Amino acid sequence: MSATLPVSIADVEESARRLAGVAHRTPLLRSHTLDALAGRRVLLKPENFQKTGSFKIRGAFAALSRLTPEERARGVITYSSGNHGQALAYAARRLECRAIVVMPENASPAKVDAARAYGADVRFKGTTSEARGAEARRLVAEHGYTLVPPFDDPRIVAGQGTIALEILEDAPDVSAILAPVGGGGLIAGIALAAKSRKPSVRVFGVEPTGADALHRSLAEHRLVKIATTDTIADGLRPQAPGQLNFEIASRHLDGVLRVDDDAILRAMRFLLERMKILVEPSGAAALAAVLEHRDADLGDPVAVVLSGGNVEMERLAKLL
Amino acid sequence: MSATLPVSIADVEESARRLAGVAHRTPLLRSHTLDALAGRRVLLKPENFQKTGSFKIRGAFAALSRLTPEERARGVITYSSGNHGQALAYAARRLECRAIVVMPENASPAKVDAARAYGADVRFKGTTSEARGAEARRLVAEHGYTLVPPFDDPRIVAGQGTIALEILEDAPDVSAILAPVGGGGLIAGIALAAKSRKPSVRVFGVEPTGADALHRSLAEHRLVKIATTDTIADGLRPQAPGQLNFEIASRHLDGVLRVDDDAILRAMRFLLERMKILVEPSGAAALAAVLEHRDADLGDPVAVVLSGGNVEMERLAKLL
Repeated sequence: MSATLPVSIADVEESARRLAGVAHRTPLLRSHTLDALAGRRVLLKPENFQKTGSFKIRGAFAALSRLTPEERARGVITYSSGNHGQALAYAARRLECRAIVVMPENASPAKVDAARAYGADVRFKGTTSEARGAEARRLVAEHGYTLVPPFDDPRIVAGQGTIALEILEDAPDVSAILAPVGGGGLIAGIALAAKSRKPSVRVFGVEPTGADALHRSLAEHRLVKIATTDTIADGLRPQAPGQLNFEIASRHLDGVLRVDDDAILRAMRFLLERMKILVEPSGAAALAAVLEHRDADLGDPVAVVLSGGNVEMERLAKLL
Repeated sequence: MSATLPVSIADVEESARRLAGVAHRTPLLRSHTLDALAGRRVLLKPENFQKTGSFKIRGAFAALSRLTPEERARGVITYSSGNHGQALAYAARRLECRAIVVMPENASPAKVDAARAYGADVRFKGTTSEARGAEARRLVAEHGYTLVPPFDDPRIVAGQGTIALEILEDAPDVSAILAPVGGGGLIAGIALAAKSRKPSVRVFGVEPTGADALHRSLAEHRLVKIATTDTIADGLRPQAPGQLNFEIASRHLDGVLRVDDDAILRAMRFLLERMKILVEPSGAAALAAVLEHRDADLGDPVAVVLSGGNVEMERLAKLL
């Protein structure tokens, strides 16, 4: 059945080889206090410590490293102003490739500065994702850039899946893996890789209650696009999962747990106050699920992906 | 000459044996961005990740582990409401020993809760350090508790010195070690241990410009007590170094670097924004010195002790 998917465990393993020496090999962190709160052992995978501050470098570099020399010479483009944009810019610089990031005209100076600091050529267009997408496609048609989407791409999925290989290597006895779901590239990669390596491991996505498109899609057995999303977790706001990610999740995911914004904030605050590590709201969602769904059938120990830590200081002050 | 000191490298080594399995063996962290900013390689020793959130557990546990069974049965007491109080409470619980912490009547609920969470019996007295000290001594006289001071004690110094052993083990080529100075127990332990193990290594204390008692004491070759201290780094506010710590610093320290509050805040913000790790203002002081004194003769690489990460969330929001 999985033979029909355009991405396999071999692609994930190949991505891991390409990422060696480029992405950090993040550890698994423990806290006795956290174990007591969760009622089970919790292994935190801190991708907030990852290069560029999020897991996105895994998919972005894995994708770019597969481009032909001709494609690299022309350059790559994306219209994600968040973590994927920064990751793409960093990956492009490592591969001596030009990167264009199309951002909204009202993008925060911090995000613009971050992308430029990684060497991106930042362009501004409109204020909606649609306007940026159209501009990116126009530039692709005009200049022959390669468009690298943030999540719905087999190369991206294969890159994100390397997280599961590391978790299983460091904790072979892990019972379940939880990761947040935005467009679904992260959870698709993890589910695919984890189930291939250890079929007994359970894999759960975590969505905000105000942005639960994958949950609804799995329930209705079709890709559901929700009209408006409402959550503080800005990385988890896509209105629908990617088609490929939905297909992988349909086959390999054990379920989606949902958490509200208050639970996300509590988890974020616990990590900062007690463990002294900063994650962005999206990065705290999977931990929030473990703390809120204590009665969920997750087993012990569980691995929790802290997906990123890019939050502007002014915003952090407000969140606290 | 150092034969007359009441603490030796053998005491530090003995403390390291006692701390094994109790304190975390913190790693050394790197950042390419930080190296570029500092103009040299910087190795961060993140004691904010240490048990109880600061290095203080090293000295507190080392001291308590040397008490006789009779002393432990009677209990221990301190009048530090900050990191030492929390560390003493945690160490006492590990050793099944009662701990009393005398706090000011206006202590923040967060500090009271933290000490109680570690099992301390919290008593309140006055609002000054003098009032608390008098109350602690009264309780010692009445109940036979052992007073464990926060810094001016050979057992405490020996415990804090274990940080230097770990740094030299992980980075034998380290050129200089920098650590913040409050009462001087940390820098005394580090200087003593580092110079004993590797005489060529340079050791520098770091003080806020508004609380530079050790700097002045070394300049005047006598223990100087400053009338009022003024700094956001609340852990570095003692008005004078301990007598023992001053003597050790006089023999073994290469100097004191001073930093203002703005530099401390910039370093704290860099750690949070770029490296996703939270330190308290005191914990950022040594890094601030490396970033501000780029022309100082420190060599390469330098090790920087991030001494703690206990900052209340409301205060953090204000600092940002």
